[in-house]
Amino acid sequence: MLLTELSVMDSNNFCGNCGAGEREGRVVSDLVARRHYRLAHGIGRSGDITAIQPKAAGSSILSVLTNAMALDVIRLAGIKTTKQCFVVPMATGMSLVLCFLTLRQLRPKARYIIWPRIDQKSCFKAILTAGFEPVIIENCLEGDELRTDVDTIQSKIKELGAENILCLYTTTSCFAPRTPDRLEEVGKICKNEDIPHIVNNAYGLQMSKCCHLVQQAANVGRVDAFVQSTDKNFMVPVGGSIIAGFDSKFVEKISQTYPGRASASPSVDLFITLLTLGSKGYQNLLKQRKDVFLYLKEKLSALGTQYGERLLNTPHNPISMVISLETFDEMDNSKAVTELGSMLFTRCVSGARVVPRGQSKDIGGHIFQGFQSHTNSYHCAYLTAAAAVGMTKEDVDLFIKRLDKVMAKVRKSQKRRGDINGSAMEETALNEGGTAEEHAPVKIENDSEEE
Amino acid sequence: MLLTELSVMDSNNFCGNCGAGEREGRVVSDLVARRHYRLAHGIGRSGDITAIQPKAAGSSILSVLTNAMALDVIRLAGIKTTKQCFVVPMATGMSLVLCFLTLRQLRPKARYIIWPRIDQKSCFKAILTAGFEPVIIENCLEGDELRTDVDTIQSKIKELGAENILCLYTTTSCFAPRTPDRLEEVGKICKNEDIPHIVNNAYGLQMSKCCHLVQQAANVGRVDAFVQSTDKNFMVPVGGSIIAGFDSKFVEKISQTYPGRASASPSVDLFITLLTLGSKGYQNLLKQRKDVFLYLKEKLSALGTQYGERLLNTPHNPISMVISLETFDEMDNSKAVTELGSMLFTRCVSGARVVPRGQSKDIGGHIFQGFQSHTNSYHCAYLTAAAAVGMTKEDVDLFIKRLDKVMAKVRKSQKRRGDINGSAMEETALNEGGTAEEHAPVKIENDSEEE
Amino acid sequence: MLLTELSVMDSNNFCGNCGAGEREGRVVSDLVARRHYRLAHGIGRSGDITAIQPKAAGSSILSVLTNAMALDVIRLAGIKTTKQCFVVPMATGMSLVLCFLTLRQLRPKARYIIWPRIDQKSCFKAILTAGFEPVIIENCLEGDELRTDVDTIQSKIKELGAENILCLYTTTSCFAPRTPDRLEEVGKICKNEDIPHIVNNAYGLQMSKCCHLVQQAANVGRVDAFVQSTDKNFMVPVGGSIIAGFDSKFVEKISQTYPGRASASPSVDLFITLLTLGSKGYQNLLKQRKDVFLYLKEKLSALGTQYGERLLNTPHNPISMVISLETFDEMDNSKAVTELGSMLFTRCVSGARVVPRGQSKDIGGHIFQGFQSHTNSYHCAYLTAAAAVGMTKEDVDLFIKRLDKVMAKVRKSQKRRGDINGSAMEETALNEGGTAEEHAPVKIENDSEEE
Amino acid sequence: MLLTELSVMDSNNFCGNCGAGEREGRVVSDLVARRHYRLAHGIGRSGDITAIQPKAAGSSILSVLTNAMALDVIRLAGIKTTKQCFVVPMATGMSLVLCFLTLRQLRPKARYIIWPRIDQKSCFKAILTAGFEPVIIENCLEGDELRTDVDTIQSKIKELGAENILCLYTTTSCFAPRTPDRLEEVGKICKNEDIPHIVNNAYGLQMSKCCHLVQQAANVGRVDAFVQSTDKNFMVPVGGSIIAGFDSKFVEKISQTYPGRASASPSVDLFITLLTLGSKGYQNLLKQRKDVFLYLKEKLSALGTQYGERLLNTPHNPISMVISLETFDEMDNSKAVTELGSMLFTRCVSGARVVPRGQSKDIGGHIFQGFQSHTNSYHCAYLTAAAAVGMTKEDVDLFIKRLDKVMAKVRKSQKRRGDINGSAMEETALNEGGTAEEHAPVKIENDSEEE
Repeated sequence: MLLTELSVMDSNNFCGNCGAGEREGRVVSDLVARRHYRLAHGIGRSGDITAIQPKAAGSSILSVLTNAMALDVIRLAGIKTTKQCFVVPMATGMSLVLCFLTLRQLRPKARYIIWPRIDQKSCFKAILTAGFEPVIIENCLEGDELRTDVDTIQSKIKELGAENILCLYTTTSCFAPRTPDRLEEVGKICKNEDIPHIVNNAYGLQMSKCCHLVQQAANVGRVDAFVQSTDKNFMVPVGGSIIAGFDSKFVEKISQTYPGRASASPSVDLFITLLTLGSKGYQNLLKQRKDVFLYLKEKLSALGTQYGERLLNTPHNPISMVISLETFDEMDNSKAVTELGSMLFTRCVSGARVVPRGQSKDIGGHIFQGFQSHTNSYHCAYLTAAAAVGMTKEDVDLFIKRLDKVMAKVRKSQKRRGDINGSAMEETALNEGGTAEEHAPVKIENDSEEE
Repeated sequence: MLLTELSVMDSNNFCGNCGAGEREGRVVSDLVARRHYRLAHGIGRSGDITAIQPKAAGSSILSVLTNAMALDVIRLAGIKTTKQCFVVPMATGMSLVLCFLTLRQLRPKARYIIWPRIDQKSCFKAILTAGFEPVIIENCLEGDELRTDVDTIQSKIKELGAENILCLYTTTSCFAPRTPDRLEEVGKICKNEDIPHIVNNAYGLQMSKCCHLVQQAANVGRVDAFVQSTDKNFMVPVGGSIIAGFDSKFVEKISQTYPGRASASPSVDLFITLLTLGSKGYQNLLKQRKDVFLYLKEKLSALGTQYGERLLNTPHNPISMVISLETFDEMDNSKAVTELGSMLFTRCVSGARVVPRGQSKDIGGHIFQGFQSHTNSYHCAYLTAAAAVGMTKEDVDLFIKRLDKVMAKVRKSQKRRGDINGSAMEETALNEGGTAEEHAPVKIENDSEEE
Repeated sequence: MLLTELSVMDSNNFCGNCGAGEREGRVVSDLVARRHYRLAHGIGRSGDITAIQPKAAGSSILSVLTNAMALDVIRLAGIKTTKQCFVVPMATGMSLVLCFLTLRQLRPKARYIIWPRIDQKSCFKAILTAGFEPVIIENCLEGDELRTDVDTIQSKIKELGAENILCLYTTTSCFAPRTPDRLEEVGKICKNEDIPHIVNNAYGLQMSKCCHLVQQAANVGRVDAFVQSTDKNFMVPVGGSIIAGFDSKFVEKISQTYPGRASASPSVDLFITLLTLGSKGYQNLLKQRKDVFLYLKEKLSALGTQYGERLLNTPHNPISMVISLETFDEMDNSKAVTELGSMLFTRCVSGARVVPRGQSKDIGGHIFQGFQSHTNSYHCAYLTAAAAVGMTKEDVDLFIKRLDKVMAKVRKSQKRRGDINGSAMEETALNEGGTAEEHAPVKIENDSEEE
Repeated sequence: MLLTELSVMDSNNFCGNCGAGEREGRVVSDLVARRHYRLAHGIGRSGDITAIQPKAAGSSILSVLTNAMALDVIRLAGIKTTKQCFVVPMATGMSLVLCFLTLRQLRPKARYIIWPRIDQKSCFKAILTAGFEPVIIENCLEGDELRTDVDTIQSKIKELGAENILCLYTTTSCFAPRTPDRLEEVGKICKNEDIPHIVNNAYGLQMSKCCHLVQQAANVGRVDAFVQSTDKNFMVPVGGSIIAGFDSKFVEKISQTYPGRASASPSVDLFITLLTLGSKGYQNLLKQRKDVFLYLKEKLSALGTQYGERLLNTPHNPISMVISLETFDEMDNSKAVTELGSMLFTRCVSGARVVPRGQSKDIGGHIFQGFQSHTNSYHCAYLTAAAAVGMTKEDVDLFIKRLDKVMAKVRKSQKRRGDINGSAMEETALNEGGTAEEHAPVKIENDSEEE
């Protein structure tokens, strides 16, 4: 009802409307009109993506309210002194590009972006797309964890010159054994060296730890903008992100850099979702996520033990965890590891990543050794899994059940293969290692486990 | 039914699906899930916005089919040798930024973009946002029309050096008295000088003339990519555009430059719309538009005559037309002209632009004299109106009726004001000239004309 | 929006509602809730189907408004002095039963219902279901038409005694060669003899002639209630009818006879439809129907001539018409006639009825000779077709095209069969004559005629 | 998806369909078409409401499947030897009329229906509407409960003659202090005397006790048909019921008595709901209801004690319960009792009935003394509340909270009134006693209790 009331405030839905321009919010398909509640004008104007459209009062109100609720929920999640934010209908990668392009206008001479390595392709591509030269900072191994090498950052700044550096570009949410970056230290450096600091907080809003890191970095150091995904944090379809910051002027500058109108769709999704959940509802989801995280940890640890593997010690990562696959890695030239990944995927387990050792990948001419493990050579092959918002204990049980089956099957088939040397694998071995998901499966098996 | 069938091919809609990652296509609000037909994974992968997602076969098929249908409809519209295209969930301005950023990777040293002036803010901002220096080419007045100054382009290239120029950036669809750029000549220059050529074909797909221009430029010269809006050409909500070109490699390069996944929403809208219309349906719409254009021309011309104004002679502009407002401009220090624009807006006439003389605007530090008229000083104030796809003869009648009323009212009130010098205007005068739409109205009047 | 506004006025949609009864408007399936706009309480109360429900103000308003609009549209259609009406969620047959049961309370001793024969099963069954004895009045042949035998009615009343007759039960809308009953004469008899008169106006509201008949019968004689289908007159799904009359008291008596609540669904459908059409829209539909009727007549006449058949002369039937099938009837022991019907059905032509001679049918122990032709022995086999509201000229063209094909094919195959005596028919002959629709087809052929 | 697949099997949704009849499933409003999934042909044919429609294969399948699922769920609920059933788009009252009309055809001479009194209007009206003479059997008081007077039934049969009795008509589900009828004993009488037995099982399907009663009566005696509401048992909107029986022939006879087609809407609702719930889901709902019933009993008992009232002892009623209002009845000439009912209603508590002593009501000329209490003179005023399927513990808590407030308020205000004799009541006293719901409230108060 609320959506309809907003919709009738847009001029394309006025009874006596008469359009003589090139863009009049006409929608020819009724199916399309309905799915957008007849909101056709998008958001923003040519000057600013957060600007009010006189033609579209309803869409404008919806956009303003959504941004206000987004700000509220960011504060609620723990980044309490956030000053301003806006929803942008682009996913995290492109939104980071927009941040970099905005900074270019302020630092036209800067060429470098300093970036503690995280093996997630679109994060890295954002640097290249925006036209900058990445300065990759390898992570330090501390116990099982991979953490930010603050000293190297400091020395790189000295080497390149602060004025030539567009920004430091850190990451909170990531897959273990990497941990969220040491934002506090990086933030302090940024403040001291007068270098902007952009934080990729992709799915970090759902974790109080990540939010705390962003807040602390802003308190004791400098954070210019932090970017988060709407789909990963709020369970809406892919397509939007929230760009936020502690300085209204800078956030406005980003919104003004966006040239022209944009899709209202991600704002509409977030608007509906936040009103549906309410702040209590969202807090309950976050609490539930924490419980599921602990539950997954417990179950995965037990399963690992059963197979002679161990849960790695990654206390700084609040969302994902790792079990080693050392005994699998020893079998059959590591094929067992990739086979395991492939089998999980064909059994409808998505998201869990099997990471073999020794992969490498070229992204835009930059070679990443040990790709997916966030370091050139991690000490073992492993499987990593996450407990993200919306996951339930039933999901965990199902995941553990299937993983158990698959591990048992791989071990058995490898054993057989060891006996009858050279026999074909049950499932086509994947030439290249990597997560199962990287490979489109031919058929999907779904063992009768649910019965 | 088709949408549902595609939807159940996405893993988040599998019965036995089990997600252990950070992005599992979970949708918490049922309202949101439904409006997206439970397609939650968006389109593309980190490597490429046109890539297939193993997790989301249905979304991937939908995206591939939409791109194929878009290619078909572009060819049908007249750009017959188009090789490849893809729908990108960003409006025209940001899509042009993406083209420029892609070119930067190929021409890292180039700094300039040569751009025949068109007074549309986001087109121009796209240059600044991408981080380039605009070289503005003023238009030549030929009769009443403003046309591309090809000679100055040629001399500018000589002056700056072809290797320092990222691209020539031309425009087809625009508001009269400007006309579509001389694409053929510009395309030839690009070919000869080995400079890329990007065409802003924003709402040009609906006009066979614009399509012909793009095709000819490609035939005899060079066109690297041309960008068109989905909302303006296909009557879907704002939010998408189609990037197309004659060289598959380059179009793929653009799609690979996009970092990460993206909203499927504009693709879904276009998918539904194209299937609903069919190619016959779309061709009928285009034919109908041409008829309405002629009808509008006839009616507007007649109305102009009635008020001692004339329809300007702009034969090269196939979508919009202009009537002078000289007699209004003479009244009351030009206030009558802005008043007229304001009154149209409050009477629910959108899209028609009243352009006074002597406005200027600063966009990102660049001052545009005579803003909105595409030239520093056009010879008269005027009103411009367009006949875009979806407009009907009934719309034209309503527009002419209201314009007549408003012109009569302004003339009368100005006359009265002439008599009682210095009296307040009936409606608050707008300090700054410009289209009515630029100013949010306080109240909307809707004279009883419909009765 | 209006539906939602009504819906939130029902107590089951109140925010703080608390139900402690056995019927609280709870809807467990969200899909079901949505398709009813969360209107769950139905209409009426135990006392009266038109009563207001305190628990459900929105549903009650909707019901009252729908009845008011229905009254308006009945008057608009030509029955101008109608006093009251209400929508009842039962089709015409059951609604007629309700009328008869109401009359029983007023005439407890009456046993007979006098009914001019019309070969439509549920009309006749309504008499039996209500528990009365039908007195069937055979129609008179006048030219090609079958018309009401008023004299026999009069003599039957004398024979049985007026006080033993529950009502005279006439029909307006019917398939040619039967015509609407002579309502004026029957109405006069009812008035003179003090016998109630119930009119089955099933799809008569769409024809000014039928409406005129009802109005005239009321003017010069007596009509107690007339019943019309909502689906046949207003193009909504099957399930509702409107019971109307010229005496508010009697109509109220009928509504009070209905025991308990009832589905709001037919009222909601009519509410939406009437508001969507508006009175102008409905009048346009009626006008269009008349045009299509004339068009069909012209086309069918021409087609008949082509095959040596003729359009029968049935000027009193304003909706349907008949062409003879005499030449087909002569072939192959009348099998050609039934074959023709069958072939039409398998070619997706519905509604047109092929009526062979000599069929008989037993309905509740009553044998109807010459069933479907409204008389014991009509002088020829024939095909009858109707032009009902919503039919278009394109439908007519398609129908004529297919009928032509089928007639040609049957004639050809019959001829062949005549040559090779005793050969099997191309399509399985239907043992029993009758409309194709009576027989579930094995497969549906769809000749490539549309290509 | 399933609904769409069924829908495209109906001829009105065929691509090449061509209709030349009077009822072609055309739907003019798109909104209406959608809410019915384009199923327009309803269910049944003129011969039988369960018959297959050749024109509408999808609707027919849906109807057949729904009836099959309904049969399954009835057996699941405990009436295990049920042979056949069908959904009829009429509420319970009208469905009972249909049963009686069917019996009339088998027992044309019978005039009486023997009916143990239950104070629910439409049950009783069903007898009158069908045209029979009710023989009301007053209930016996046993402890606090009102139970079937089997002896009087037996003697009435002797008095009237078995052949003159259409049927015995009993009720399972009812409001305490009445209890479900002694079906076993009545069933035995029916068997012995060869009199049909119709059971009103309105909301009895949700209670294993009621189902057991029906089953037992069929085992040891005779049950011809039992009728249940779809909305009360399955939480769909009002409008349908299920007629079931132990003899397929008789159930078919009822379905054949229905004259003509009927709305598919209640079948569609039930189809969706049963598929959504699954048999497990429905069983969970029934289990939950039992728990809530016990919870309500406990809470209501405690509340009663607090106010010096008691929970009456009604062990045979499995769905509702009663607390006395004796202390309220003593105040202010019983006005306090009606005031209490009125206040509950204005506080959005629906369904709970306050029953004062000494009301009487005329239904169709029959005077019911002590109406609502199921007996001429119950020994105290009381409040009765039910725990029906779908009620939650939160509902109970809310109900108890509001009832507590209201009882406190009434007592306080009565006390004050006692002090200042003759002062006006806070809320307008209702002249006639009865449940609050009987009186449309002027305004709805909603005390700030939820805060």
